[in-house]
Amino acid sequence: MTGGAAPRDPAQRDPARRDPAAPRGRRPGPTETREKILAEARDLFAEKGYDGASLRAIARAAGVDPALVHHFFGNKEGVFIEAMRFPVDPSVVLPRIMSAPRDRLGETMVRTFLDVWGDEDRRAPMLAMLRSAMTNERAAALLREFVTVALFGRARQVTEAPPLGIQAAAGQMIGLMMLRYVLRVEPMASVPEDELIELVAPTIQRYLTS
Amino acid sequence: MTGGAAPRDPAQRDPARRDPAAPRGRRPGPTETREKILAEARDLFAEKGYDGASLRAIARAAGVDPALVHHFFGNKEGVFIEAMRFPVDPSVVLPRIMSAPRDRLGETMVRTFLDVWGDEDRRAPMLAMLRSAMTNERAAALLREFVTVALFGRARQVTEAPPLGIQAAAGQMIGLMMLRYVLRVEPMASVPEDELIELVAPTIQRYLTS
Repeated sequence: MTGGAAPRDPAQRDPARRDPAAPRGRRPGPTETREKILAEARDLFAEKGYDGASLRAIARAAGVDPALVHHFFGNKEGVFIEAMRFPVDPSVVLPRIMSAPRDRLGETMVRTFLDVWGDEDRRAPMLAMLRSAMTNERAAALLREFVTVALFGRARQVTEAPPLGIQAAAGQMIGLMMLRYVLRVEPMASVPEDELIELVAPTIQRYLTS
Repeated sequence: MTGGAAPRDPAQRDPARRDPAAPRGRRPGPTETREKILAEARDLFAEKGYDGASLRAIARAAGVDPALVHHFFGNKEGVFIEAMRFPVDPSVVLPRIMSAPRDRLGETMVRTFLDVWGDEDRRAPMLAMLRSAMTNERAAALLREFVTVALFGRARQVTEAPPLGIQAAAGQMIGLMMLRYVLRVEPMASVPEDELIELVAPTIQRYLTS
C-alpha cells in the first residue's frame, strides 16, 4: 500500500499515515474518516444487528477513538441513521421511475430494484437495515420512519398510485430480494434478470396503476 | 398444576429424576430427549442440508436409537418440520390451498397466510426463523432447505404451478408480512384482511396459474 504503486483511493492512505502521537485536535481527512466509520458501522450492524454493534466496537473496527465517533454522530443511533443512508437517493430514483411511460411503470420499477440489489455494495446496506429492523424495535422504528417518509411519502408526490398499492409493490420486491439474495432459493437465486422482470413487472404495474 | 409446589410443567421434573444407571430400554426424560434430538437435527440440517442429514445420523448425534427418533417424529420430514418449529404443517396446509377451485387459488393462499400470520403465536416462530436466516448463514441454510424441500418441493407435488411462480408468490407474501407485521408501515399495517386479499389475490392467482 505504501510502496511504489500508489493506492487507487487516496482515502486509503489515511490510516497508514496517521500518527498516533498527533494532537487529537488535528483530524486529517475528516471526510474519509467519517466514511470509514460508516462503512465499518454498516458491516457491524449487518453482522450483529443494532443492539449487538456497540459504538465502541464500531470505533475499534474503524481504528479511531470512540470520542471521534461521538464527535461525528452524537451516539449510536446517529451512526445508524447515517450508516443506513439508502444506497440510492429516493428523491432521485423515484421521480425517474415514475416518469417512465405509464404502461412501463412496473417494468421500470422492477428493473431499478434489480439494478440496485444486484450490486453487492448497494445491497449490503439495505440488508443491514432489514436485519436490524427485524431484531430491534428501535431499528424497526427508524426504518419505518425512513420507509414512510423517504420512500412512500416521496412516491406519493410523484405518482397517483394508492399508498396501499405502492406498499404491496414494495412488499413484492422486498420478498423477492429475500428469496433471491438472502435465502438464495433456486430457481429464484439464479434466474436471469429479464425473466424475473417479465414475471414480476405485471404485478407491479397493476399495483401502481389500478 | 397438580399441587401447591409442583412444577408447572410435569415434563420438567423428568431430567432431575433421571438415573444415569437406568437400563437403556427405559427412556427417562422424554421431553429432554426430544429437545436434544431436535437440537442435533438443526445442526445437522444446517451443516449437511436436508438430503445429507440422515435420520440415523441425527439419532447418533443425539445418542439415541433411531427407533426413538421414529417414535417421536415419524420420519425425517417430521423431524425437520419440528426442528424448524414451523407453526403450520405444509403437508396439511398446501394440499388444502391447492385443492381450492382453480380460479380461487390466489385468494385461498393469501387468506391462509393471513390466518397464520395474523395469529401472534404462529407468527412469532416464523419471524424468528427469518431473523435467524438474515443474521446467520447456517440458519439461512436451514431455512433454505426447509423452504426448498418442505414448501416448494411439497407444492410441486400438488400443483402444476411453475417453481418460479410459486417463489414469486411466496416472495409477495413474505414481503407483505414484513411491511404489515415487522415494520408496521401504514396503511399496510392496519388495512382489513379482506381489502388486502382483494388487492393481492390476483397477483398470487397469476403466479400460480399462468
